[in-house]
Amino acid sequence: MVRSTHSPSVLTDHRFWNDLKPLKRLAILGSTGSIGQSTLSIVEQFPERYSVATLAAGRNLDEACAQAVRWRPKMVSLATEELAAQLTSRLRQAGVSGVEVVHGVEGTVACATHSEADFVVSAIVGVAGLEATHAAILAGKPVGLANKECMVAAGEILTAAARRHNVPILPIDSEHNAVHQCMRVGAYSEVKTIWLTASGGPFRQTPLDRFPGITPEQALKHPTWVMGRRITIDSATMLNKGLEIIEACRLFDVPPAKVRVTVHPQSTVHSLVEYVDGSILAQISVTDMRLPILYALAYPERPASTLTFDLAALRHLDFEEPDFKRFPCLRLAYEAAEKGGAHCIALNASDEVAVEAFLDRRIPFTGIPDTIEKVLASTPEAHPATIAEVLAADRQARERAAQLVS
Amino acid sequence: MVRSTHSPSVLTDHRFWNDLKPLKRLAILGSTGSIGQSTLSIVEQFPERYSVATLAAGRNLDEACAQAVRWRPKMVSLATEELAAQLTSRLRQAGVSGVEVVHGVEGTVACATHSEADFVVSAIVGVAGLEATHAAILAGKPVGLANKECMVAAGEILTAAARRHNVPILPIDSEHNAVHQCMRVGAYSEVKTIWLTASGGPFRQTPLDRFPGITPEQALKHPTWVMGRRITIDSATMLNKGLEIIEACRLFDVPPAKVRVTVHPQSTVHSLVEYVDGSILAQISVTDMRLPILYALAYPERPASTLTFDLAALRHLDFEEPDFKRFPCLRLAYEAAEKGGAHCIALNASDEVAVEAFLDRRIPFTGIPDTIEKVLASTPEAHPATIAEVLAADRQARERAAQLVS
Repeated sequence: MVRSTHSPSVLTDHRFWNDLKPLKRLAILGSTGSIGQSTLSIVEQFPERYSVATLAAGRNLDEACAQAVRWRPKMVSLATEELAAQLTSRLRQAGVSGVEVVHGVEGTVACATHSEADFVVSAIVGVAGLEATHAAILAGKPVGLANKECMVAAGEILTAAARRHNVPILPIDSEHNAVHQCMRVGAYSEVKTIWLTASGGPFRQTPLDRFPGITPEQALKHPTWVMGRRITIDSATMLNKGLEIIEACRLFDVPPAKVRVTVHPQSTVHSLVEYVDGSILAQISVTDMRLPILYALAYPERPASTLTFDLAALRHLDFEEPDFKRFPCLRLAYEAAEKGGAHCIALNASDEVAVEAFLDRRIPFTGIPDTIEKVLASTPEAHPATIAEVLAADRQARERAAQLVS
Repeated sequence: MVRSTHSPSVLTDHRFWNDLKPLKRLAILGSTGSIGQSTLSIVEQFPERYSVATLAAGRNLDEACAQAVRWRPKMVSLATEELAAQLTSRLRQAGVSGVEVVHGVEGTVACATHSEADFVVSAIVGVAGLEATHAAILAGKPVGLANKECMVAAGEILTAAARRHNVPILPIDSEHNAVHQCMRVGAYSEVKTIWLTASGGPFRQTPLDRFPGITPEQALKHPTWVMGRRITIDSATMLNKGLEIIEACRLFDVPPAKVRVTVHPQSTVHSLVEYVDGSILAQISVTDMRLPILYALAYPERPASTLTFDLAALRHLDFEEPDFKRFPCLRLAYEAAEKGGAHCIALNASDEVAVEAFLDRRIPFTGIPDTIEKVLASTPEAHPATIAEVLAADRQARERAAQLVS
């Protein structure tokens, strides 16, 4: 039978072609956190493009159980053997079968390297997600990276592995996602400066002499983003931007001198890339993490989304130079970025301990950079070559910081 | 002999590789104008990358002669036979040989299609450059297009020819050049809106009732760009932005509804592209035409230039919606863009006549949109299929406009 190309059957062919686009099966590490939940909302919106292969969570049993029932992944990992046993029992009661329940770092690694996962969303906060992210790269899985500590603590190891295995790492951090987009307009060798935008946090205009008296309540009020407690304090000290400087150096293979910060209170321009010819490309969008997640999942495509920014309503964009006196964490980050390796690990680890101490009112706000500076000063120059060495350096820095804040 | 890859000879190999980059030999149409002179300054700066094949000028004999002596092109074209004869005589006196001197439209076409030209810079203002640009495309020469009237009057013909002959057209207009850069970050099908920025001209905040009294002297003061007289008046009426809307529709194959204007008084963001996923890419640079010229010449590469923008000095960027009441030319342009063909030709032609009349104080400032609107109203819907038909429609519109302003 000869079919006319103008017959209604071409519609079927078109649908068939759409069906042929590969379904990406996701391993979501940190599924009960903010990025994990946003990723699942995208899977919900694009069921023909994304599915859930595995979910790795921590201690949020209720949410992990609800996700397992809803998404029927092949595997779920929780923090401990006990939590895993509880989940197994709950799933049995709910009549859910076919979900393998695992636990601990090994469980997270098993989720990250599962044979049915095509793409790994790495969103476990802190260095906890490090081993799983490394394992995913070694297993050849493309990674959407929302965990900036991974790149700060082990960026040299992760990017070397990604190059060796030809695995793309797509940044989900809004700034680095913006940089990734702007980097598509030229060659890496043509990049002159990566400009990371910073909101400046709540103390951008606070007089310097009031910094010692800043309380946790004041520091937890971020002007533009709603985020976790540590990252909110890191925004207030601008250490967060410091970590992003190091992350940018690793992700885009540039020296620290090529990464600069511009304070942009509206958080509308997410970052900029300046090229050697003089052109600067900027990325603008709503402040909604679903946008960089969707970008990473769909790259190099851009699906239509409802996350639109009303450019007609755009009124003013302000930019100013960051104040290194108010925010010594920025200087400390550049120093760590220059030295690399153990210093980057120490910067991140000592900050985490110091932020916890500040939130517990054991040290003042200005004690955060003071603690970091002392830990960095006592850190020997070293370049850990394995994840085990990274974790050891991380533990050492935490111990030194803990002594300082106690 | 076995050579170590670590021997100093790799340096030689590298230089050799650089030498192998092809020299682009340029045909510069409109060589004595502002864009032509800027193009020659770039050839001067990058002598190993660009050379001059041919130069087409108009009536500026002195400058054309100086350029011919300096650049020794294979061919120079001037407006008339008499000017050409004078140039021939002057070159003979100066002892310059090997430069063929031609004239008129045929001379410009000969320059554009010369066998030794690899790339054509089309910068003859108005429809005068149209035939030569069309001929260049038919001859398979990549075009850097600074002449927006070409795209407005004959965009449908030129882009069809460019597609048929697989010839790139690289926009040199700063806005479209910015759009071209921002379009590299996604697929054409993923573009939601092209946002052209407009300075808003000198009358952005002038009360509406003062518009009839605006003088040529007031209208010739543009806040950010120094340009020719017609384009400066077109900026004051925003008809210039209207022509750019049509140019964008043609260059990037989008309907008028997908092209919008945002008023941005600083002229720092040269344009933006909004994608369907919600990301907006913006291009920022100095207001210097050498930047888009260099981009077009070097594309897809970006050579290092001194045309840097000091992002650290960036303070405020303002954006506002354009006022269609103050600037009826914008509405007229959208109407012409929707109808296409003869209406776009009539928009451009009637404006040129009306601007001349305004500068001669024969009609008031508000007479410019009035004249255009009347000419458009009497223009029959038609889509000229040849350059001859375009030029005929252009002449008809000019005649109607001339009657109206006399």
